[in-house]
Amino acid sequence: MSIESTNTLVLTSRDVANIVGRVGCDYFMDEMIKRLQRAFEIYDPSRVTVPVRDGFHYSQPQTGLLEWMPIHQHGRGVLVKMVGYHPHNPIRHCLPTVLSAFSLFDTSTGRLLAFVDGVLLTAIRTGAASAVATRLLARNDGGCVGIIGCGAQAVTQLHALSRIMSISEVRCYDKNPAVMESFGKRISSCIGDSPLLLSPTPEEVASESDVLCTATSVDVAAGPVFKFVSTREHLHVNAVGSDLAGKTELPRLLLEQSLVCPDFPEQAQKEGECQQLNADQIGPSLLQVAANPNHWRAATTRRTVFDSTGWALEDAVATELVMDLAVTLEIGTRMSVDSDISDPWNPYAEVAGDVNSEASQQQQTAHGALY
Amino acid sequence: MSIESTNTLVLTSRDVANIVGRVGCDYFMDEMIKRLQRAFEIYDPSRVTVPVRDGFHYSQPQTGLLEWMPIHQHGRGVLVKMVGYHPHNPIRHCLPTVLSAFSLFDTSTGRLLAFVDGVLLTAIRTGAASAVATRLLARNDGGCVGIIGCGAQAVTQLHALSRIMSISEVRCYDKNPAVMESFGKRISSCIGDSPLLLSPTPEEVASESDVLCTATSVDVAAGPVFKFVSTREHLHVNAVGSDLAGKTELPRLLLEQSLVCPDFPEQAQKEGECQQLNADQIGPSLLQVAANPNHWRAATTRRTVFDSTGWALEDAVATELVMDLAVTLEIGTRMSVDSDISDPWNPYAEVAGDVNSEASQQQQTAHGALY
Repeated sequence: MSIESTNTLVLTSRDVANIVGRVGCDYFMDEMIKRLQRAFEIYDPSRVTVPVRDGFHYSQPQTGLLEWMPIHQHGRGVLVKMVGYHPHNPIRHCLPTVLSAFSLFDTSTGRLLAFVDGVLLTAIRTGAASAVATRLLARNDGGCVGIIGCGAQAVTQLHALSRIMSISEVRCYDKNPAVMESFGKRISSCIGDSPLLLSPTPEEVASESDVLCTATSVDVAAGPVFKFVSTREHLHVNAVGSDLAGKTELPRLLLEQSLVCPDFPEQAQKEGECQQLNADQIGPSLLQVAANPNHWRAATTRRTVFDSTGWALEDAVATELVMDLAVTLEIGTRMSVDSDISDPWNPYAEVAGDVNSEASQQQQTAHGALY
Repeated sequence: MSIESTNTLVLTSRDVANIVGRVGCDYFMDEMIKRLQRAFEIYDPSRVTVPVRDGFHYSQPQTGLLEWMPIHQHGRGVLVKMVGYHPHNPIRHCLPTVLSAFSLFDTSTGRLLAFVDGVLLTAIRTGAASAVATRLLARNDGGCVGIIGCGAQAVTQLHALSRIMSISEVRCYDKNPAVMESFGKRISSCIGDSPLLLSPTPEEVASESDVLCTATSVDVAAGPVFKFVSTREHLHVNAVGSDLAGKTELPRLLLEQSLVCPDFPEQAQKEGECQQLNADQIGPSLLQVAANPNHWRAATTRRTVFDSTGWALEDAVATELVMDLAVTLEIGTRMSVDSDISDPWNPYAEVAGDVNSEASQQQQTAHGALY
């Protein structure tokens, strides 16, 4: 990951939006899909360590969780994403359900190389992962895309799909009518002239879809988000909402009919749709499919499910992409977060420092009126 | 924790040094010791969740580790410290061995309230914890303080002790002669007129001390850092170096002679001096002693060891203290890290945003020539 100076690169949510805006949403998504597929193809588990994420789950002050998702790419650094899931955010706080922040560390020294807001990147990489899965597991003749849950993640799911398949129509459902009705405005640029149909039931969406995406905030133990119905024999589902023990979106019978491919099997068995299955009912991981697509080609004619719980490797690819562009476009702020150290043996060296020193004066100028 | 706005408070290493400098090292340390002791006394395990830290340990590109230390103070937020331990840093990179960064999250929404460099704060809170332990477990008539390992942590250990005991002399040892010889310059303000004696051996330090501090970067399996020798019957040891499986500093026989009080028993058995003991040889935690000091008063006449592996509760207290002062002194930078969100259902809302909007123009001004 290219770093120009010893300072920490800070990319706020606005910086990330500016980067994506400068190169264009389509270019950014295409590049993300391309890099992600490549990362899956060349993945070498002996060169990467990814623990199953862990975190705090709570019901007070309201339902939520804060988790850490770490990844060590040997010789390339450690990335830790802190991710929050607070389903009451949009209505109560006008904030996204999923907030996150990436910290990238240099494993030579432990220094913080970058601190990057992860809201948009998480939405994009989750969409990109579904696009990779859809390319590998769905029939390649396009068709109807169904969306159950029309929130923020659904926007990037549909955008990502629009980059890799021909969408003849979109059918969507959200239990919140206002969110369903405003969906068209949010995704108009993705679907061009194809019609968007608001479905009266999630079951109708499921039964009419060639590719289905579930991206809901269903409560723990309240799933599935649609009743088992007859679906197309080649249906491919990207199930992206499950990310908690007990939280699942799909009817168990549909899973049992399908080849279920988790992003991160160990995690999917704890938090994903795979919670509903025995180990012998779980198919290959998306990695295995990506590494040997010809072997799994026949799966495209049957029902398939990508069980997407979110994987730190995806975050690492997203961070590398946005940092590459930040350097090229000169967007972002470089801050001496941890680098103002003159004596590694004396933690008080800077405290006792001469306030008239050059470094100190520069700092005062940078902080302006605070001093 | 008082937050004035919805923006994230960022405190760099220089900001933290400025805050400590403005109030004075002694005031800051005294306040840290006072708040820490209070936090120990009122600790309610039903209101706080602290997992044992976890992380990545590696030998390439050089020996090091990066760990996450999370704490959930129910109703008060989640703090995650990312901490790096890279013992080659001072010589090879002119950086401290221990680098760290604190991220504080609001559990109502998952928003990032503060991002704070942790190098100085970690050193201070580790010193303050030893001061609390020394006050509870050592004879209160002062005497000779021994220091084995004269690096950055030793400076704040000695500073903290100087605030709670009368130091008649300091004996120190470091296997790096240059680090030992420069120690006096770093700690002169802590010890006033008391003599600093450079010892030829760590055993001499151990045998002559009333209070001993070990703060070394001894390699895994290379301990102890001094051979078992006869020590004072009331010796109190603050062992702060152990923080890795297999890394220990004290001779096992000394531990067996002593009442050993860990900061965080579960972690100390994995990473601290307690690794060398059976469960029935481990004494009360420092919390238990702090909650009932009279019950443990007799321990002050015998050998005692504070097994300090570093505890996220200490980091939470340090973060709260520095944030309180940052607000009062108006030091630090407020950044919209994750708060430029106009539509929680549309991750692209800011990408597509009108570049002539007021918010966008303000951002361009703030980033100046980058645009």
